Amino acid sequence: MIDDRLEKQLAFIIEIDKVKQIFRQTRLYDQSRYENDAEHGWHMSMMVLVFSEHAADSGIDLCKVMKMALLHDIVEIDAGDQYLYGRDTVDLPKKEAAAARRIFGLLPDPQRDEFIELWEEFEARETPEARFAKAVDRLGPLLQEYHNHGHAWKKHGVYADTVRKVNRVIEDGAPRLWEYAKSLIEESVRRGDLPE
Amino acid sequence: MIDDRLEKQLAFIIEIDKVKQIFRQTRLYDQSRYENDAEHGWHMSMMVLVFSEHAADSGIDLCKVMKMALLHDIVEIDAGDQYLYGRDTVDLPKKEAAAARRIFGLLPDPQRDEFIELWEEFEARETPEARFAKAVDRLGPLLQEYHNHGHAWKKHGVYADTVRKVNRVIEDGAPRLWEYAKSLIEESVRRGDLPE
Repeated sequence: MIDDRLEKQLAFIIEIDKVKQIFRQTRLYDQSRYENDAEHGWHMSMMVLVFSEHAADSGIDLCKVMKMALLHDIVEIDAGDQYLYGRDTVDLPKKEAAAARRIFGLLPDPQRDEFIELWEEFEARETPEARFAKAVDRLGPLLQEYHNHGHAWKKHGVYADTVRKVNRVIEDGAPRLWEYAKSLIEESVRRGDLPE
Repeated sequence: MIDDRLEKQLAFIIEIDKVKQIFRQTRLYDQSRYENDAEHGWHMSMMVLVFSEHAADSGIDLCKVMKMALLHDIVEIDAGDQYLYGRDTVDLPKKEAAAARRIFGLLPDPQRDEFIELWEEFEARETPEARFAKAVDRLGPLLQEYHNHGHAWKKHGVYADTVRKVNRVIEDGAPRLWEYAKSLIEESVRRGDLPE
């Protein structure tokens, strides 16, 4: 009744339900609670669609960017959520690569390799698709922090220069969105939500 | 600094954060809590990707199916979540159509029309893309109920014949997945999780 390929696909689909239990440092816009990685993946994918006209390269493969947005945080099932402004730069890449091998490794060929490659391409940020995906992945939390008056920035003692530096990658993928992002950062400084 | 198009897109992106507050009748696989529409949208989009080889029509536009999966429940911000086995068939289509006009209407042209058309195409279930999207939208909750021992079926007093009837649309979009879905329904009956 159930062949080997479908069995592997089902095991993967059930395993990734755990993404709904990985909570981030950012909160919903109504500030009622923290957001989880599945919600972030959905919202980021919608942003990819809605903001596609602002991509630096107008010829990007939008389907590929959506795939990257959907699967980019699945490695956090094993590696955990890493706060954008508090990255453990030593162990993290190794942990995440092992997570990608284990979790995407549940899938049959060639899906396993396709998903691992999509995740690696996103992380490497060398293609126009990965640069746009990363730009949107950064803009999301920045928008949230702006609207939540810097809740997570204050909690973690983050300074304006760090926020400028970490989010600068938005420029490579979506220059128009970086212009807007900069205005959010400066307004947050003016408001007292983000110290210089 | 911010033009009219980007302003409208941002208003839409912030409005749809409310999708994270719409809770469904199905629970996470670990049964710890109910699932919300944003999590369902993410998981369904991943299933579209993973199960694409099982689509009835091998030539479907997968990018379009992913878009449908991402936005199909946004109308529930206004219309509310409707339990699959307890549909209010009189008012619901009218409520959802009004919701689509209001919420997608926040977007600039031509995105507003594109998103409304994608949602209408999904609901009409007349194209191969919509049939596959609907098949995956039905398979997800069935898988959850099977693994959660019919939690929502029991809560709402749902019978096996209703489950067979409501999920039969899976066959049109993904015959191989319908074969599997039928085995889950019959096993649930055997286990005593779903009464005849």
